[in-house]
Amino acid sequence: MHKVDLNCDLGESFGAYKLGLDEEVIKHVSSVNVACGWHAGDPIVMDKTVAAAKSFGVAVGAHPAFPDLMGFGRREMVLSPAETESYVLYQLGALYAFTRRHGVELTHMKAHGSLYNMAAKDIGMAMALCKAVAGFDKNIAIVGLAGSKMRAAAEELGLTFVSEVFADRAYEDDGSLVARSKPGSMIEDAALAIDRVVAMVKTGKVYSINGKQISIAADTVCVHGDNSHAVEFVMAIRKRLMDEGVTVVSLR
Amino acid sequence: MHKVDLNCDLGESFGAYKLGLDEEVIKHVSSVNVACGWHAGDPIVMDKTVAAAKSFGVAVGAHPAFPDLMGFGRREMVLSPAETESYVLYQLGALYAFTRRHGVELTHMKAHGSLYNMAAKDIGMAMALCKAVAGFDKNIAIVGLAGSKMRAAAEELGLTFVSEVFADRAYEDDGSLVARSKPGSMIEDAALAIDRVVAMVKTGKVYSINGKQISIAADTVCVHGDNSHAVEFVMAIRKRLMDEGVTVVSLR
Amino acid sequence: MHKVDLNCDLGESFGAYKLGLDEEVIKHVSSVNVACGWHAGDPIVMDKTVAAAKSFGVAVGAHPAFPDLMGFGRREMVLSPAETESYVLYQLGALYAFTRRHGVELTHMKAHGSLYNMAAKDIGMAMALCKAVAGFDKNIAIVGLAGSKMRAAAEELGLTFVSEVFADRAYEDDGSLVARSKPGSMIEDAALAIDRVVAMVKTGKVYSINGKQISIAADTVCVHGDNSHAVEFVMAIRKRLMDEGVTVVSLR
Amino acid sequence: MHKVDLNCDLGESFGAYKLGLDEEVIKHVSSVNVACGWHAGDPIVMDKTVAAAKSFGVAVGAHPAFPDLMGFGRREMVLSPAETESYVLYQLGALYAFTRRHGVELTHMKAHGSLYNMAAKDIGMAMALCKAVAGFDKNIAIVGLAGSKMRAAAEELGLTFVSEVFADRAYEDDGSLVARSKPGSMIEDAALAIDRVVAMVKTGKVYSINGKQISIAADTVCVHGDNSHAVEFVMAIRKRLMDEGVTVVSLR
Repeated sequence: MHKVDLNCDLGESFGAYKLGLDEEVIKHVSSVNVACGWHAGDPIVMDKTVAAAKSFGVAVGAHPAFPDLMGFGRREMVLSPAETESYVLYQLGALYAFTRRHGVELTHMKAHGSLYNMAAKDIGMAMALCKAVAGFDKNIAIVGLAGSKMRAAAEELGLTFVSEVFADRAYEDDGSLVARSKPGSMIEDAALAIDRVVAMVKTGKVYSINGKQISIAADTVCVHGDNSHAVEFVMAIRKRLMDEGVTVVSLR
Repeated sequence: MHKVDLNCDLGESFGAYKLGLDEEVIKHVSSVNVACGWHAGDPIVMDKTVAAAKSFGVAVGAHPAFPDLMGFGRREMVLSPAETESYVLYQLGALYAFTRRHGVELTHMKAHGSLYNMAAKDIGMAMALCKAVAGFDKNIAIVGLAGSKMRAAAEELGLTFVSEVFADRAYEDDGSLVARSKPGSMIEDAALAIDRVVAMVKTGKVYSINGKQISIAADTVCVHGDNSHAVEFVMAIRKRLMDEGVTVVSLR
Repeated sequence: MHKVDLNCDLGESFGAYKLGLDEEVIKHVSSVNVACGWHAGDPIVMDKTVAAAKSFGVAVGAHPAFPDLMGFGRREMVLSPAETESYVLYQLGALYAFTRRHGVELTHMKAHGSLYNMAAKDIGMAMALCKAVAGFDKNIAIVGLAGSKMRAAAEELGLTFVSEVFADRAYEDDGSLVARSKPGSMIEDAALAIDRVVAMVKTGKVYSINGKQISIAADTVCVHGDNSHAVEFVMAIRKRLMDEGVTVVSLR
Repeated sequence: MHKVDLNCDLGESFGAYKLGLDEEVIKHVSSVNVACGWHAGDPIVMDKTVAAAKSFGVAVGAHPAFPDLMGFGRREMVLSPAETESYVLYQLGALYAFTRRHGVELTHMKAHGSLYNMAAKDIGMAMALCKAVAGFDKNIAIVGLAGSKMRAAAEELGLTFVSEVFADRAYEDDGSLVARSKPGSMIEDAALAIDRVVAMVKTGKVYSINGKQISIAADTVCVHGDNSHAVEFVMAIRKRLMDEGVTVVSLR
């Protein structure tokens, strides 16, 4: 019996700015990562997003980021571990308030953008992120890149680690993501991408960019709701997983 | 047996900017209102402030404000009730994260600056503030201006209302604060200010600016830690209260 | 020989957030008001917007606002005249840097959102806005609501005032805009809206919401590029003006 | 005949937050670098600072930074060259508005904090900074670390480069600053620091941390006004320079 979670970043609108087809993609995923106002999102958006997550029965996680609204949290910043930890804790609490108001559980934390990518490689940042979560609630799971430093940090602190894979990204032999700047880093062919996801979920293996078969833990698959094409891809991936006998389960 | 709380705004430093003699004044008050990052404070400051409050055994409250760092939350903004409620909820949650990390209770909420003043007069804003608290935790008390709309709103939602008085401000006949722009609005004489506080606490009465004796509920007295003069005033007021047989008790 | 300017707010995207069909609507207007980063816009967007304005030969103006990105500058704030003046001056200079880099003239200033609306009614705010412009460059024209306090302020300081009318808004007998909350405040019928614009431009008169013919100076018409419908309306209004023998001229 | 400029960062207060003894230190320096609102400063502060600079006859420069108020611009951020250039141009223009209002010249640009340090080593960032200035006004001088990439970039674009030295910092053999984390990086002894400045100005040489005599161009000396001790040091350095026959001249 195979099972996997489908997670999507949500609530990235801000003030007058609308981003993403939240109300479409939420129907097809099992867990959502809600922006906490630092790279995207605002309290009104957070409130609506948590309410929507409740009505669709998907698991709600916090999606903290660097303090960089203008750069959408995609730019690297060099913070101290204490800064990182307290920034994540702040955002975690802010989102928690909305989950508490709506009576839903805050199930997980997934860092956004550069914070996610830097913490995947830097154990100091990974520990800071996980300490923020552990200081708040040890039942909150850590969603991080499969095989990354985030797993080591989560395990060190006794937190549940949820290993995330990407449908549309190629992997190096060591299981890290191929840098976007390299040719072949993106899996453009939707059918191939879906085949790879199924293989990762059912066999725990994927072919690296060099054609080597490597092990990878696929607890959750990152999908997107940026546009109608992305939403269709989520529907296709979900249908295929079900056809393959894989149960889509939330992080709750 | 008379008792009263002494509360002070704390944690209003931000990044490289230091404001207030927090480490001095905290020794002499029983409750603190901690800035939540919108008019002042940042996650590093919030963390340190909650840790200090824990070590001094004072009650910790949230001190939410308008999103106006440049104006220190002192400028009026016209927000919708939904905006007000969600902004306060966001800040409440953010501070709560630090109280949870340090294992202390979040006992109360006191709005800052213009948010405090506007909500004292506007039942719509007062309800929005109190709904934010009620949606989060009905055990959190509301600190608001004695006799203001905040009391009505708190009672409407079944929340505990803590009636706040000011040592250094004159009152109108109806119990509202005399506008700062009016002559005589500030009680400059420290001895007189302390006499008035003692009278408010022990008799529940104070003389208005027109010389009329009016009723006022003094559950907590607002004091300041801006400078050494202010801290000395807090020490003097505390000593006098004890001399008068009044017990200084925190909001916990 | 009648002439009129068509102006549109532009450059309101921010970071990852895209807003408005700038590249479409810019083809059909004669002047643009460029967001300066406080309610919308960022330096990258400002640079691209000024470059686009240059290539399409439209006049470039600054579109300063309250410091309220989360509220898109639409919420009232109570600032002192000194704050208002310095905030506008800051934004004016910021945009000027991009016009200077691209070798185009900064022709006008039009306040955004609540800043526009409040200054239309409050001579203190209107003076603060106009002083900011006068202190920077007396050749920059002030675009403001027809018949508003902005005209008085601009004239007081010897600045050129450009009287703005709205195609889609009803007017009170005194020439002020009918509040959006009142029934009939918006002219929903596109053909009627265009007829009204033509009448305002050619006769200097318009029918108020009470059916009274009032005088109105129509130097420029405010149009929008929010969506394809809005852009079509701009094309229709421009075509009609040309059919009526009205020349569309920029503010330069 | 030797001459040198003494420059100091100024206008780093923000809203309710006061930082630095601006009104003291301004009496003793010849040039000031004014914060532009991104790491510190706000429009009210900028206005007052430029007015003060005018009344004391010191040269006014822009002091742009990363968009990081919470980190005071001291944290590294990874921006694209286009982002860096447009961010600097924005801040340059914002400050220029105040110099224009007060009728003083904008003489120079000196980057702040991490932006200064990163651009000293990275020719791409240095070029972005210098392009921002060149696109605005080729008469604005670039103040940068002696011997750094900023000199190369300024020269490449035909801008005047002003070589800056630090009284309180040790130098490596290659003329770069010894990292603060290394022992001996700071020159703690005030008398020694002053001797070193005099030597740099009069001989163009300084002893590196390894005791090797290296060449260094000292067009301007960076001093501070953070506290009374720092101001006294500025007075001492100025007096000594005059005693040594060195003329203190502004960047104008």
